[in-house]
Amino acid sequence: MPVINPNLLVIEPREMAKMGAEILITNAYIIYKKEELREEALKRGVHSLLKWDKPLMTDSGSYQLYEYGDLEISNSDIIEFQMRVGSDIITPLDIPTPPFVSRRKALKDLEATLERMEEAKRLFSASAAAAAEGGCESSGELEVGESGGKESGKGVAKGEALLAGVVQGSTYLDLREESAKRLAKMQFDIYAIGGVVPLLELYEFGRIMDIIATAKMNLPLNAPVHLFGAGHPMFFSFAVALGCDLFDSAAYAIYAKDKRYLTSEGTFYAEDLNYLPCSCPVCVSHSAKEVRESVELLAAHNLYAAFEEMRVVKQSIVEGTLWELCERRARSHPSLMDALRRLTKYVDFIERLDPVTKHPFFYLSETCAFRPEVRRFARMLERFKLRGKVLLTTFPLNEGEAARRMEQEGYEHVLVVKPPFGAFPIELAETYPVGQSEIPNEIDEHAKEVALEHVLRLMRLNRDAKFFVECDERWAKLKKMEEVKKIASEFVLRSDDAEREEG
Amino acid sequence: MPVINPNLLVIEPREMAKMGAEILITNAYIIYKKEELREEALKRGVHSLLKWDKPLMTDSGSYQLYEYGDLEISNSDIIEFQMRVGSDIITPLDIPTPPFVSRRKALKDLEATLERMEEAKRLFSASAAAAAEGGCESSGELEVGESGGKESGKGVAKGEALLAGVVQGSTYLDLREESAKRLAKMQFDIYAIGGVVPLLELYEFGRIMDIIATAKMNLPLNAPVHLFGAGHPMFFSFAVALGCDLFDSAAYAIYAKDKRYLTSEGTFYAEDLNYLPCSCPVCVSHSAKEVRESVELLAAHNLYAAFEEMRVVKQSIVEGTLWELCERRARSHPSLMDALRRLTKYVDFIERLDPVTKHPFFYLSETCAFRPEVRRFARMLERFKLRGKVLLTTFPLNEGEAARRMEQEGYEHVLVVKPPFGAFPIELAETYPVGQSEIPNEIDEHAKEVALEHVLRLMRLNRDAKFFVECDERWAKLKKMEEVKKIASEFVLRSDDAEREEG
Repeated sequence: MPVINPNLLVIEPREMAKMGAEILITNAYIIYKKEELREEALKRGVHSLLKWDKPLMTDSGSYQLYEYGDLEISNSDIIEFQMRVGSDIITPLDIPTPPFVSRRKALKDLEATLERMEEAKRLFSASAAAAAEGGCESSGELEVGESGGKESGKGVAKGEALLAGVVQGSTYLDLREESAKRLAKMQFDIYAIGGVVPLLELYEFGRIMDIIATAKMNLPLNAPVHLFGAGHPMFFSFAVALGCDLFDSAAYAIYAKDKRYLTSEGTFYAEDLNYLPCSCPVCVSHSAKEVRESVELLAAHNLYAAFEEMRVVKQSIVEGTLWELCERRARSHPSLMDALRRLTKYVDFIERLDPVTKHPFFYLSETCAFRPEVRRFARMLERFKLRGKVLLTTFPLNEGEAARRMEQEGYEHVLVVKPPFGAFPIELAETYPVGQSEIPNEIDEHAKEVALEHVLRLMRLNRDAKFFVECDERWAKLKKMEEVKKIASEFVLRSDDAEREEG
Repeated sequence: MPVINPNLLVIEPREMAKMGAEILITNAYIIYKKEELREEALKRGVHSLLKWDKPLMTDSGSYQLYEYGDLEISNSDIIEFQMRVGSDIITPLDIPTPPFVSRRKALKDLEATLERMEEAKRLFSASAAAAAEGGCESSGELEVGESGGKESGKGVAKGEALLAGVVQGSTYLDLREESAKRLAKMQFDIYAIGGVVPLLELYEFGRIMDIIATAKMNLPLNAPVHLFGAGHPMFFSFAVALGCDLFDSAAYAIYAKDKRYLTSEGTFYAEDLNYLPCSCPVCVSHSAKEVRESVELLAAHNLYAAFEEMRVVKQSIVEGTLWELCERRARSHPSLMDALRRLTKYVDFIERLDPVTKHPFFYLSETCAFRPEVRRFARMLERFKLRGKVLLTTFPLNEGEAARRMEQEGYEHVLVVKPPFGAFPIELAETYPVGQSEIPNEIDEHAKEVALEHVLRLMRLNRDAKFFVECDERWAKLKKMEEVKKIASEFVLRSDDAEREEG
């Protein structure tokens, strides 16, 4: 959702539709405060004011509350105003608590926010009930004919607007949890995570991941989650990986004003750009010099970059490659590496909801040793029932070779060790994920360590089987292989010409 | 250089100029073989034939030789033909040896290729000398007036064309070395690395890196190097990191014909695209369905993607962030991880030519512990002369805190340990690279191991100094810290609340 400032349209909403926008967000408080905007919005609706006939979310002015400490409007008034002007997604006036405040302050703010959320729910339900009965006390004379939402046929009809509940709690994860749980009980249509903008500005991406994960794990899984103020494309993939669905971006305009050029791989100071690292219509039809010097061109480029990254994320979801995308984006900044590492902290939560098969598994860094697919494979070990003579090899046998050795050497099972998964029965050689995983020729020790942990667990789960372990020199050097050797009935070290050549 | 097939213009050359092309490449053999093309090229020049008035390189047909085993033209004839039609960069008819052939075959092919290169040099020098004298025996009646190069004012004038020497040697690095050395002696204008297409198709990126590095280390550093047939944008950054300057791309058209969509982050089958992960003029003005179904749209997108990546690479060179770009691209495929790891193998070669200061150093994976900047820092250790009481701390002191402790506790030097560099004197706190490096909050053990190796070396280089080591719990756990402890005069383990909170 590009943010539209009704006082200052850097890009016209109809232009935004051409660039890919399907929904916008604007600030109800800014409209309310300026008389001509307010009157126009009350008369013809906010969609008409912005010349936009698709869905529109309104924010409440809580950011202004945060910046200036006080507002000229109450929670109930701003909610009622949003309803009267026909907003499609309505936001109560929450209190955005800064990060790293005292626990006492965070708790006090949170309680106040939660009260406002309760009030919003009451107002909203009363209005919806009244609308259902054909009358609405709060909208008064504007209800019939002049109110934007219903009569103009733009946006959704009044009574069908959605209400957002805002999660606060500063950097205290237990307060974030409390916040999410209590909002979930109140049942909002959409949940928004607030108070993260200062953390984004500090590049505290690891902490934001903790906040998102904590909220998401305590909110209804079937409700959309909005991450307030996260408009830089370099962070979208991470937020989506933990379950965020909606973003708003004022960044496209704010960064442009500061002469900064956004990409999904980071931010450039426009003055540093000798070449435009983008193919958007702005960048292919203007010189670097022209773009450097124009706030309008920078804003348009920035918005193209944000929509492009949204499509990149969506396509990665279609293919099941969102983790791989995060691996790439993490290399845009060391602080995003922290965000990537945080994903592994929530791997059990992700694993529960992760599709069972997808695009081949790509091993792209040691973080991949802790991906949900690897975790899931580890749980599958208990289902491998082994007995008799078992060949366990670090050499990549194919199914034909395995069948031959089973017959000639009398093995009941042939298992091939593949990092980071562990040992898989040759029958799974074509299945996802282990059989459909691509690994580098030179893989790191973490992947092998995780694989050997799984091998050891499998051996211990099948104490009646006799394991014949066949190992190449590179695997033999690993400490955990000593433990494997102890359990094995026989252990053969074989050299491998191909490996030696690689080495 | 987009490849233009004169028989089949998927995109018109004038369109390519709009997309960013400044030089094209076409196949002289294809032109030669078809009578109407040959006559037109001989009459009006190859620039006129292709309606292109900027630089143009011609290939010799060696790919066709590779594919079909025999050609209807000799090396001298195709070189003469390229000269007569006014090509700006002329390629002799080398013999592209496939990878993994016998050494004998590779050597035999290489000797034949080198003979052809010698012949090319002779022909070219004779022609240039004749041109300089105002006559050219080989061009005959076409020399004056009708030949494309000189009179049409397009391309460069005859006698000013450049000659490319082609490096072969299959997958034998010693033969690649031999090939590069002998070509270097013959002094070509441009050097081209041939015979890598099958390796690109096999995703053998690690081996290609070896081949490029071997060639580059044995060619004159001031001559441009072309990597023949590497047209996929996902590999550009790696090839450039080892010193390639020129690429040709038939990939844009070939992949389009196979209904594949190129990006700098990999290849998509067009039929899998629900969203278009790109902002190029094709992708923002067409639906995914339209692009999926059109070879022309796919080719145009693919070419936009290639030019975009070229600009990304160029901008990264301006900023000094090419390694970071390779880190990101490496996460597009496990085989590119091998290419990234290969960069560390050639770090001493890269370090010699790497700028001394640039954009802040980003630590993005354990490969970064082996970057040229770290290597260079290690060499600097010998210049740190320490004596008296030295504080060596793993806590990130700032300059003010360091000055206070020097005064209060009587230290001659304060050194702060920062992975992956090691211990740096506080006076370097603002300098590149160590003082201008960004590292994740949670950094891997490799970075710390490398840092401690450098710490140990520094301590051993300054045996007269007394080291007071102050260490936090996370550093204390490392094995190498035991060795530091042995050399230190005093060793204090201090807890750090901030670190504990990070956990």
